Parts: sequence; C-alpha cells; structure tokens
Amino acid sequence: MQILNNQNYIPQISIDCVIFGYRDKELKVLVSKLNFEGNFWSLAGGFINQHEDIDTAAYRILHERTGITEIYLEQFHVFGNAARNNIGFFKKLIELNPGTMGNEVYDWLNNRFISIGYYALVDINTAIPKKAELDKVIDWCNVKDLPGLIMDHKDIVEKALESLRQNLDQKLIAFNLLPETFTMKELQELYEAIFDKPFARNNFQKKMLDLNVLERLEKKFTGAANKAPYLYRFRNNG
Amino acid sequence: MQILNNQNYIPQISIDCVIFGYRDKELKVLVSKLNFEGNFWSLAGGFINQHEDIDTAAYRILHERTGITEIYLEQFHVFGNAARNNIGFFKKLIELNPGTMGNEVYDWLNNRFISIGYYALVDINTAIPKKAELDKVIDWCNVKDLPGLIMDHKDIVEKALESLRQNLDQKLIAFNLLPETFTMKELQELYEAIFDKPFARNNFQKKMLDLNVLERLEKKFTGAANKAPYLYRFRNNG
Repeated sequence: MQILNNQNYIPQISIDCVIFGYRDKELKVLVSKLNFEGNFWSLAGGFINQHEDIDTAAYRILHERTGITEIYLEQFHVFGNAARNNIGFFKKLIELNPGTMGNEVYDWLNNRFISIGYYALVDINTAIPKKAELDKVIDWCNVKDLPGLIMDHKDIVEKALESLRQNLDQKLIAFNLLPETFTMKELQELYEAIFDKPFARNNFQKKMLDLNVLERLEKKFTGAANKAPYLYRFRNNG
Repeated sequence: MQILNNQNYIPQISIDCVIFGYRDKELKVLVSKLNFEGNFWSLAGGFINQHEDIDTAAYRILHERTGITEIYLEQFHVFGNAARNNIGFFKKLIELNPGTMGNEVYDWLNNRFISIGYYALVDINTAIPKKAELDKVIDWCNVKDLPGLIMDHKDIVEKALESLRQNLDQKLIAFNLLPETFTMKELQELYEAIFDKPFARNNFQKKMLDLNVLERLEKKFTGAANKAPYLYRFRNNG
C-alpha cells in the first residue's frame, strides 16, 4: 500500500480535513478506519507537494481520501505543539503490522508534523464518500459518539466544531447545506444540531432575520393555510 | 548580522506577526525597516524551533523583533501559495548589499515558505516597540498609508485586518484595548477606526449592549449632569 505517493512533499507539514455532515437533525463527522490490522480511526489527511498551493493540496487530499469534490473547504486552525508527532501511533501500528512500512517511509513520517486544519460542512445526502486504498472503512459518525481517533485527531475535531459554531452565521450560504427553499424550523434544527442545544423559537427567528441574508417567500403548502410556515431562501448577495 | 540564530528551525515554515495599534482614533500597524541598504519594510517574522510550540515561537519572535511582550496574539491564517518565496526580495537585497549573506543562510532562506500569520491589537500607549539588530527602524504606520512591504506582507496585513473586523466583537475583551472604564462614544470610535467607516450612534449602542459583555456604571463626571455619558466596563465573565 502506498502511504507516500512521491517524495516531493514539504517535510514536517500536513493537512487534516474535518468534514462535518448534516442529515436528519444530526451532525456527523467523516472518519476512516485505516487499512491495517488494529483499530486505527483517522481524519482524512495528507501532505503538500512542493509546487502546490496549500488550498489545492487540501482539496486534492480530500478527494484522494474520500472521493468528495466540489465542497467549500476552509482553513480553521494550525496544530503546532512541539509534542505533536506520530510516534505513539506508529509504535502500535508497527507492533500489529510488522514489515508493513519501508524504512524510508517510516523515517519521513516519524517526525514532528505541523498540521493545517481544514473543515467543511456538507449535506450527507449529496456528498457520498468512497473509501481509498489506505482505508478499510470510511463512514459518517455522530460527532458525540466518535470512535477513538489516532494522534490528536479528536482535538482537531473539537477545535473544528468550535470554529464551525463561531462562524456559522457567516458561512451558512457558502456551506450550501439546506435545500433551495426551507422553513425557519428547518434552519433552527440545523443550528440545534450544530450547537447541540435547543434555541427559543422567537429569539432564533429574530436573530436569523437580523442577519439580513434571508428572503421570505410564499407560505409552504401544507393544506392548512393558517398554520402553514413561510418558506425562505438565501439572498443572492447575502 | 545574525539572520538565523541557529540551524535548528523547521524548514519552509515561518511566522509573521501583524501587530495593530490603536491610539487617538487611529489604527496603525507595526512595521520595521530592515537594517540593510535599500528600502525593505517588513512585518515582524521568524522561524520555529524544532522543539518549540508554534504559539511559543510567535511570542518569542514578536519579543525578539519588537521587544513587545504580554499581549494577546492569535493565529488568523496560513499563507501557503506555491509561488510564495523570498526570491524577488533577495535578488534586490543582494544587489544592494553584496556579500551580506552567507551561502548557508541564503540557501536555507531561498525556498518556498509557508507562513503562519498571527495578529494582535494593542494600545499604542502601553506597547512600546524597541528595534532589534535586524532592524534599522521600527514604527507604527497608519494602516491606510503603509510603506511598500516586502514579499506578500501587504496581503498578510489585509487578511489580518479582515480577521480583526470579523472577530472584533468576540475578541474585544482579550485585546484589552480600552481603559478600565470607557464611554460608549470611546468604544464607537475604536470600531470606527478599525472598520474605517462611521456607525449610527443608536444602532451601535444597541448592537454593543446586545453582545452582553458590557456593564453600565455611573455617569462620567463632566460638570453637566444632564448630558453626562454613562461609563461602561467589560463584565468579568463576558
């Protein structure tokens, strides 16, 4: 199995992608089980070619590892503690998989790595992951019930979730997560899944309208005209 | 002149610090003129030791280059275009300063560098910069009237300003920029300097109070009781 596609990567820097998925009022994260003996769950990560922009590298890595394209990825944080390295993870992996990794690959990987975190939020119905050679399984796991992840990948997910919450108002349109028209209740359910707490309906509606990105359309047809909710869509120049 | 203090840095990664300063309703940026022949203005930047956390490196670099300590620095963006390198800058510098730079230093620096941007916003009255050996001059320049900066440092300042504007509501307390008590007008002047536009007084006051981080105190003593403005301070648990 090829862990390094070539030797033309920038040393000691990696990229890790946290892909959040939303469906049926649930927030999930895309994780893969590495194709080795043992229970190694990981985010989609990789390295940067010498002649590649880092944003391009992030999209390439995401595509190579998950098959996903055409989503909006954004940098959110750099993980750069001096103690951040692969050593603990490798020790276990090599114990369970003797002879798997050539010396050259091992020496290259067995280093301190500074990792640039990218995140995205996608609609699970439209972003369909496909496992790569490096993975045994790739799947959406509930953000509150993730398997044990290698290295500091759990901290990376937590920091990504914090960034997602902080920036959701501004990124709502870019994430392209809701159908073209939606009710205020559907929007509220999305926020409740991401913040993992209920919001008061009136306050939520007021806050959303104050953002000035929603356009109110006709009422949704439900048969019961009186109680039918309004439909909304995002303004073009939100 | 020592450009590299030692050879134990991580290759191809740098840190650049954008230090915004506020005083008298003006937003400035701390820039230094490098101690070479020629007009090379630069942000405070440097490299990361192999055994150093990146946040620690950012504080060390800031201290080494500007003498400033005890401020709140925060990562805001990674600049990682493949075309990002020192080549154009070096060509000019070496033309004007032949023999200045040893081959070893040149070879190390003459590379693609991914730079992690950190920014801070400080009170110019309390953060007093001190020039380092590497600098001829270090000074606060108005953000709207910066000298020509080396490499992509102007883009780095612009991106930092964008981040500052996006996060100001949340970072206001951390930046510790206003006196312990202040009027709404003083707060508004700070926002107007940073956003470079006027705000309507009533809307601004409402927005600030809605943030729920201000505590209203007694009126400021001005002699004219009726028109005296209220004083505010930040809540402890903002």
